[in-house]
Amino acid sequence: MGATEPQWVLMATGRSPTNIAVIKYWGKRDEALILPVNDSISVTLDPDHLSATTTVAASPSFPSDRMWLNGKEIALSGGRFQSCLREIRKRARDVEDEKKGIKIKKEDWEKLHVHIASYNNFPTAAGLASSAAGLACLVFTLGKLMNVNEDYGELSSIARQGSGSACRSIYGGFVKWCMGKNDDGSDSMAVQLVDESHWDDLVIIIAVVSSKQKETSSTSGMRDTVETSPLLQYRAQTVVPSRILKMEDAIKNRDFESFARLTCADSNQFHAVCLDTSPPIFYMNDTSHRIISLVEKWNHSEGTPQVYSVPV
Amino acid sequence: MGATEPQWVLMATGRSPTNIAVIKYWGKRDEALILPVNDSISVTLDPDHLSATTTVAASPSFPSDRMWLNGKEIALSGGRFQSCLREIRKRARDVEDEKKGIKIKKEDWEKLHVHIASYNNFPTAAGLASSAAGLACLVFTLGKLMNVNEDYGELSSIARQGSGSACRSIYGGFVKWCMGKNDDGSDSMAVQLVDESHWDDLVIIIAVVSSKQKETSSTSGMRDTVETSPLLQYRAQTVVPSRILKMEDAIKNRDFESFARLTCADSNQFHAVCLDTSPPIFYMNDTSHRIISLVEKWNHSEGTPQVYSVPV
Repeated sequence: MGATEPQWVLMATGRSPTNIAVIKYWGKRDEALILPVNDSISVTLDPDHLSATTTVAASPSFPSDRMWLNGKEIALSGGRFQSCLREIRKRARDVEDEKKGIKIKKEDWEKLHVHIASYNNFPTAAGLASSAAGLACLVFTLGKLMNVNEDYGELSSIARQGSGSACRSIYGGFVKWCMGKNDDGSDSMAVQLVDESHWDDLVIIIAVVSSKQKETSSTSGMRDTVETSPLLQYRAQTVVPSRILKMEDAIKNRDFESFARLTCADSNQFHAVCLDTSPPIFYMNDTSHRIISLVEKWNHSEGTPQVYSVPV
Repeated sequence: MGATEPQWVLMATGRSPTNIAVIKYWGKRDEALILPVNDSISVTLDPDHLSATTTVAASPSFPSDRMWLNGKEIALSGGRFQSCLREIRKRARDVEDEKKGIKIKKEDWEKLHVHIASYNNFPTAAGLASSAAGLACLVFTLGKLMNVNEDYGELSSIARQGSGSACRSIYGGFVKWCMGKNDDGSDSMAVQLVDESHWDDLVIIIAVVSSKQKETSSTSGMRDTVETSPLLQYRAQTVVPSRILKMEDAIKNRDFESFARLTCADSNQFHAVCLDTSPPIFYMNDTSHRIISLVEKWNHSEGTPQVYSVPV
């Protein structure tokens, strides 16, 4: 490869669904490595419904790494994108495309720049885990482009460094993000609990009560909660561990009643620690309240949960 | 006194202000005696602004105890009114009104029935402690009618059995409700920390964001929280005790910054445990959120709290 070679472009495209936590991730114990204060569990949505689609391209003609989100260029300078790029580049392998006459050696990837274009088919930064889908997709697609050979656990750990909950979007079905114990984050990764066929009559309805961007980003919100909420550590250390065990059982047994109760309780507790933050963080509005009250009344009149509501 | 005597009516009127908690009472450890899970501190408002005015009348012509709230008759059968009536009747003493020719002996009060008329000069059951003002006023005015000689601490303990936070409306200024330790509630009463002259340049602004009756009463709401919130006991046992000490200092020193920060944090934590309840309790709406955000922005731009907002 050299300046005299033809100016080829190599591309790869991938699609990753968003995921909705049923036991919530809120609070980091390490900001740089994105290590959480508790385990979390999520359900990955159907990529036809809520997903990010990302195309990555590498070419010797690109003078720098650049990224476009929903058609608008955004800064790639943030540590999160850089972490993912660095970790994938480290694992890049030889790529050969005989038809196009492209031959990239492992070590060439350090010098090749990429262009990234990502689209969400749903509102961005409105509480629908757009960064989870986006960063999972970025890692997955970069991995494809650079021919990396890592297993999904390893990819989830890389995606985690882009956006914590992105690690869970690497898998379909129900996914657990194990917080891990190591300081270097090497054991903080996602595992699939069951795949998407396990509970395929479970229907998820997303009601977008506002498509405006959240006033407080998850990143700064959870930082404020860790610093100021007296309830967060109690939640993380005492409440969540037992809920994780119960939730795993509920999922394995397709026990909708337990699943629904735990999901609602944990979602509400996540909003509770947001409120317990100084200044308080509000992710619900009057419409969210009305939906929850409606669902509560319906379930109460039926005696058992027919549906559950999880403000996200 | 007997059936042949003239059908006299003896009356007394009193007025009690409402109080706004700055360290919140939420959760009972004994439902019947109304014993709380934590100490609380409040500021009593000016009775000219938010208060209950109650007139109690006794007459041998009344066949039963009756009560009117804001002009509408309400059932007196609830245990709370009965507790207050019983406790005051127990302590009633001889009353003589020579002009009217009325002579009531201590033991006559057991047979005499009362009529109670109470008015609030503000929205009832909308989160403005109408029952605190109302029950404090009832106890105070009944005590006046029946010539009881108890000190304010004792009266506060009786008012507590009508509505927990009513015990704090017996005093002006800043008031602490000591939760007490005894099973019979004998040490669960209010004490005045400082009187209303201590911090008389403190201005309290009440913004009524909705005058509709709350969807969940405090009584049933706090019962649900005690039964279902995993965070409440941690708040009561670990968070509140240190806040009480800091708040007492802030009040004594008229330290507005500490006072404001603690008040906001505790109000938000009260709303947090409401949210952590199953089903969740919402006492704030979008207007409350907007007021809090506005106040936060103002304080942030000034660098120190100019004003604090406490959704009640």
